[in-house]
Amino acid sequence: MKAVTNCNQSGCLAYSRTEISDVPLLSCSEAMEKLKSFREKVKGKQQFLAMYSSIFGGITTDPAAMVIPMDDHMVHRGHGVFDTTAIIDGYLYELDQHLDRFIRNGTLRYWLSAGPGDFDLSPSGCHKSCLYAITIQDLSPINFRGVKVVTSNVPIKPPQFATTKSVNYLPNVLSKMEAEELGAFVGIWLDSDGFVAEGPSMNVAFVTKEKELVMPLCDKILSGCTAKRVLTLAESLVREGKLCGIRMKNVSVEEGKNADEMMLLGSGIMVRSVVQWDEQIIGCGKEGPITQTLLNLVVEDMKSTLPAVGTPVPY
Amino acid sequence: MKAVTNCNQSGCLAYSRTEISDVPLLSCSEAMEKLKSFREKVKGKQQFLAMYSSIFGGITTDPAAMVIPMDDHMVHRGHGVFDTTAIIDGYLYELDQHLDRFIRNGTLRYWLSAGPGDFDLSPSGCHKSCLYAITIQDLSPINFRGVKVVTSNVPIKPPQFATTKSVNYLPNVLSKMEAEELGAFVGIWLDSDGFVAEGPSMNVAFVTKEKELVMPLCDKILSGCTAKRVLTLAESLVREGKLCGIRMKNVSVEEGKNADEMMLLGSGIMVRSVVQWDEQIIGCGKEGPITQTLLNLVVEDMKSTLPAVGTPVPY
Repeated sequence: MKAVTNCNQSGCLAYSRTEISDVPLLSCSEAMEKLKSFREKVKGKQQFLAMYSSIFGGITTDPAAMVIPMDDHMVHRGHGVFDTTAIIDGYLYELDQHLDRFIRNGTLRYWLSAGPGDFDLSPSGCHKSCLYAITIQDLSPINFRGVKVVTSNVPIKPPQFATTKSVNYLPNVLSKMEAEELGAFVGIWLDSDGFVAEGPSMNVAFVTKEKELVMPLCDKILSGCTAKRVLTLAESLVREGKLCGIRMKNVSVEEGKNADEMMLLGSGIMVRSVVQWDEQIIGCGKEGPITQTLLNLVVEDMKSTLPAVGTPVPY
Repeated sequence: MKAVTNCNQSGCLAYSRTEISDVPLLSCSEAMEKLKSFREKVKGKQQFLAMYSSIFGGITTDPAAMVIPMDDHMVHRGHGVFDTTAIIDGYLYELDQHLDRFIRNGTLRYWLSAGPGDFDLSPSGCHKSCLYAITIQDLSPINFRGVKVVTSNVPIKPPQFATTKSVNYLPNVLSKMEAEELGAFVGIWLDSDGFVAEGPSMNVAFVTKEKELVMPLCDKILSGCTAKRVLTLAESLVREGKLCGIRMKNVSVEEGKNADEMMLLGSGIMVRSVVQWDEQIIGCGKEGPITQTLLNLVVEDMKSTLPAVGTPVPY
């Protein structure tokens, strides 16, 4: 009998074999020691500052304790939903003071799961739902550079699942991996009628040659918060005469590829200019001026509205 | 600012609010203590005997340590695959001796994940893939009683995802919950052409009035190991003249509902008789004789072939 240890090359799941007789039996504290040394050895690009778990009934700042029971149905069945909140300039949920001092920018991501209980499909054996939340530090500056996108060959999720932010994101993962293999930023999904749908965790919008801001309808895709905010902020550009109008409509691939500007909208990227879609150069192949203006408006808006919508941290 | 604790009623995600000032800051060992007391308080119908984790590099028998890092992409993106192996009469993978003594029946379920690293979509920031495996005790006897099924209204997954055993099982969960709400055992999915597809974690087969064993083609659904084994074992019934033949073909709903027998095939249930589909009574409304014979053949086969395919445990 063999056990499997494994390594990851460019996202593929691979494995090598070890004799199971080498595998030690660990107590809880020994297992936690292993988790600690794993965290010390492996440093990713994101830093996890704090985690709340309703299992613990508390917040921990130790990455070794940032765990979820294996039998939570979110883990083994994808039975969980999530959302993400930006943290900008220190406005975030009122965590412990020593955290507040050094988190200036990042995100809070939170999941509501069906909870642990068993490894069945039905949540009927789950004790209760669980909430998990992690504060993730992000020190990367806002990126204004235009990106390339490709049409995704990964099947889009049925509307019932595409309109929900569940952890069933394997189609999104595969679409992102497919794009990265082609040297692109993300893949663009088309809906079952061939109209432009969305990216793997972001909305898409266009500025037509007539200077209309158009965005695909949200009946089959997730109606993103950033996209909604951008539509509202774009109204000022209509008043200034920079845009002739704003419309939610079905957008064909041809219409999209012939647009003056194309952009991606999401909580992570905010507003990102697309300069190439498959082989087609978008507009003049440079970051579009309306896109850049919308990014600046979103950044300003987030900063200026935070004292009203966020909880300020007492330094 | 409010934090959320939550409870689960009939599978719905619900929550109540608590002031965040009540939420303590926990060290790693305090968080583990909370996990321990959670495990002591909450006993499910399944008992988890042991867990292997490649993060630990070992096996633990303490349920408090049966955890997975929150940032493993399997948790937050559904980027993982799994399988399950039955444990019958003590034949199981060579775990530590004190475990072997009391596991006689159960399952070993194992997951290969993209691994921890960050909360992005792409696995490019993941250090390496991880393997997790849990031994689950199951003392429930084999159930011979016929069940009711309903046609599922939850959209079936696209073939690319339906043919893979990933943790993106929310459609399967919702289909199971929908069935349970209707007093049924599981929902039956139809494919995009309206033909019978599969149950949420099992294959479907029928015995026609002409005594042919028919099973839907596996081009759009998971080709289950139990189903394959049953097809092989059923050949003896053809030789005995109890069946006139065995065929993989497209099965219409009408053909299925008018069959003499209908059965579900999966590693958990093995072979389960269906006595009612929606309002339609199947056959005479009782467990079908061919179905019962196939269940007995599978149980015998598993017991008799285990010394050849399994590793016996030295008691």
